[in-house]
Amino acid sequence: MPTEHLDRLFRDFESYRVSHAPSGTPESLYAPMDYILSLGGKRLRPILTLAACEAFGGDSQRALAPALGIEVFHNFSLVHDDIMDQAPLRRASETVHMKWDINTAILSGDALLVEAYRLIAQVDAEVLPDVLDRFTQTARRLCEGQQLDMEFEQRSKVEEAQYLEMIEGKTSVLIGCALAVGARIGGADNDSANAMYDFGRKLGLAFQIMDDHLDCFGDPGKTGKQEGGDILAGKHTLLAIHCRHQDAQAFEEMSKRTGREKVQGMKQLYVQTATDSYALGKSEALLTESIADLRKALDEGPQRQALEELAKSLVHRSF
Amino acid sequence: MPTEHLDRLFRDFESYRVSHAPSGTPESLYAPMDYILSLGGKRLRPILTLAACEAFGGDSQRALAPALGIEVFHNFSLVHDDIMDQAPLRRASETVHMKWDINTAILSGDALLVEAYRLIAQVDAEVLPDVLDRFTQTARRLCEGQQLDMEFEQRSKVEEAQYLEMIEGKTSVLIGCALAVGARIGGADNDSANAMYDFGRKLGLAFQIMDDHLDCFGDPGKTGKQEGGDILAGKHTLLAIHCRHQDAQAFEEMSKRTGREKVQGMKQLYVQTATDSYALGKSEALLTESIADLRKALDEGPQRQALEELAKSLVHRSF
Repeated sequence: MPTEHLDRLFRDFESYRVSHAPSGTPESLYAPMDYILSLGGKRLRPILTLAACEAFGGDSQRALAPALGIEVFHNFSLVHDDIMDQAPLRRASETVHMKWDINTAILSGDALLVEAYRLIAQVDAEVLPDVLDRFTQTARRLCEGQQLDMEFEQRSKVEEAQYLEMIEGKTSVLIGCALAVGARIGGADNDSANAMYDFGRKLGLAFQIMDDHLDCFGDPGKTGKQEGGDILAGKHTLLAIHCRHQDAQAFEEMSKRTGREKVQGMKQLYVQTATDSYALGKSEALLTESIADLRKALDEGPQRQALEELAKSLVHRSF
Repeated sequence: MPTEHLDRLFRDFESYRVSHAPSGTPESLYAPMDYILSLGGKRLRPILTLAACEAFGGDSQRALAPALGIEVFHNFSLVHDDIMDQAPLRRASETVHMKWDINTAILSGDALLVEAYRLIAQVDAEVLPDVLDRFTQTARRLCEGQQLDMEFEQRSKVEEAQYLEMIEGKTSVLIGCALAVGARIGGADNDSANAMYDFGRKLGLAFQIMDDHLDCFGDPGKTGKQEGGDILAGKHTLLAIHCRHQDAQAFEEMSKRTGREKVQGMKQLYVQTATDSYALGKSEALLTESIADLRKALDEGPQRQALEELAKSLVHRSF
């Protein structure tokens, strides 16, 4: 996406977000809501909402409230997921339940979800039922994805299709929803909005698979992640699932190791079994499919080109 | 409320609820949602929604989905509040976080909140923005009320106005919302719906104050509560707050005691300081005010009479 266009949408969004920060009494409920929203992040989802609105000829100013609603919802899911995952840090800062306590994190998360609905509902009455329905279906899938993720932690084995279903719920559907909602506000009909949803859903899958790949093969100096963090945690990523299918015995042997030896050994095994290129290929194929959906939704032009470039940059990244 | 009318609405609601029980995959997400909704309860809120709809000449069948949405929302708040309060039992059964675990309770609570919005949104497009707005404002107040309640536990002193604000959030606004939403679906204009909201809000306060009174002076055989549970827990109820104002020294002395001695001594002090009659008078005054609001909203007739009788029976109860 041309940096200038992207920067404008980012600045518009941030300025709206800051002037519409959660506030009220008791302050102890609203402070954690404001805190998590102020930690930063790429603001990928709301920028997609604004860009999709413009791509269909709409004024992105009218999509600011729902775009913020999507971002607030994303932050609700981070606050509650961080409790469940007992995560100490989020964006290099303390998580809400660590900075305050679990009860405050549960409740301010709930209030974020309510606030998300309040903002999402700020669309024309004409598209309100459809926008609400899309958002609710997405929120439901997100809960299902998080539950699956927690279940997988207890399992010794997860199949690829199950893994893809889980990351579709946890990551992809909200990216699809952000695009579809922006498209509807911009004037897209239902079919075009569905195609934008599919674009985002597949892009989200490609993005997440690349995330798994970078966790293992990325440059920790660029990604900010611990090298092989997923390997050390024994997570069922696409890499782990595929590698086990290629050579179950070698995978099980390697899984018993610990520390640096485990990370280096598993990386080597991933390369030997062509698991690394399998993941890259899968991610690339999903990106190609996603762009085909984008092209169904939008005619050729600078707006479509911008979204295509943004999609590619999200997958072909090194950080 | 004539038992026959009430029974019909209750049966209609229960039959709709059972045939629209939460379901989906993973089952581990939906089972706790179904469990909490199946534990029973008076179904006060959804019955008020249906009754208000009929009172304005609407077909209560069209209010069933939003009525269930209100009940699902109520159950969401129970699941999350029970985590925060570390409550082992709800309606004489295990709470969700005890039967499953805290993570499951957080997530299935979240899914209940999303499901509540899905159901609430099933109204005519004409009233959708108003119904959503009322519901969201109510949900927000509920979060604020719960946060205040948690804050009060840390305080040595709470004033009556603060206590009333807290119970208004935790209990009253959802009763008001149930009535206002039903009224709007039934065809009420905005002013009448607001009057129905005030009716419910004040009725909810009267109801909660009576609840505090019964916790102390009720017959445990009828209430199913531990006699003086609030006294033993040192809760800031209207009784405790008023009694301290009447005789701070005696109240502080009595607060230091424990067990049966504390309960009996405090009950005696409440009577000596006329705190018991103060609470009953306050509850009665709020009931009278609430009925005045009901009379603003509705013309005289059997429907209004039914709601008036229901209101009185909810406050003048012994269980």
